[in-house]
Amino acid sequence: MLKPLGRHVLAEIHGCPFDVLNDVKKVESIMVNAALESGAEVREVVFHKFSPQGISGVVVISESHLAIHTWPELGYAAVDVFTCGDKVNPWDACNYMTELFGASHMTAKETARGMLSPEVVPQVAVNL
Amino acid sequence: MLKPLGRHVLAEIHGCPFDVLNDVKKVESIMVNAALESGAEVREVVFHKFSPQGISGVVVISESHLAIHTWPELGYAAVDVFTCGDKVNPWDACNYMTELFGASHMTAKETARGMLSPEVVPQVAVNL
Repeated sequence: MLKPLGRHVLAEIHGCPFDVLNDVKKVESIMVNAALESGAEVREVVFHKFSPQGISGVVVISESHLAIHTWPELGYAAVDVFTCGDKVNPWDACNYMTELFGASHMTAKETARGMLSPEVVPQVAVNL
Repeated sequence: MLKPLGRHVLAEIHGCPFDVLNDVKKVESIMVNAALESGAEVREVVFHKFSPQGISGVVVISESHLAIHTWPELGYAAVDVFTCGDKVNPWDACNYMTELFGASHMTAKETARGMLSPEVVPQVAVNL
């Protein structure tokens, strides 16, 4: 059976307080801690505050990334967590963020990434 | 009918040359140009090169983000393009990257993000 290279969870996080989703330092801190709490290694962090409101940001981890875009006026955050390998569970990060954002509910779905054909992987396995 | 806040395309890009997917400056340039070519406004750019190979990077745009993780040894790149509003078509960016990476093929799927319930949106529309 093919094993994907990565797991990509797209999470819809609803019912969050305006002041949390519009505080760039708080959102950045929660995202970085979500990465660390799930066992990821943080490599790069970049966040951007929009006017009059809203935040976009990404935490690049050794295992891939966590990204967020917030609509504070809607109490909504679009999050995605992409992880590779067996060490980090992307759902741990999603659940952590949902709790720390003070959300009323979250829905999410996972997509397998990098389902490579057997013709590609064995060729490379020889070089590993 | 509900209109989503954003469109999120997850693209699997296969059959790319090792030297392209392992060149952080080239990958960054292609990603930034993919954003610009699709009409997006670039806000932040962060790329990371892994040892012995592989690149992770994100271009934060006013309309959300473009992210990439490359496995040069597999000729594979996992890309996702998230756009909000009607100005930018995420598929334009995906197609641009596929061409510039010299890929043999690309498969992708689009997910609607931020399908908010009518109870949430009208409340906010009053404030706009």
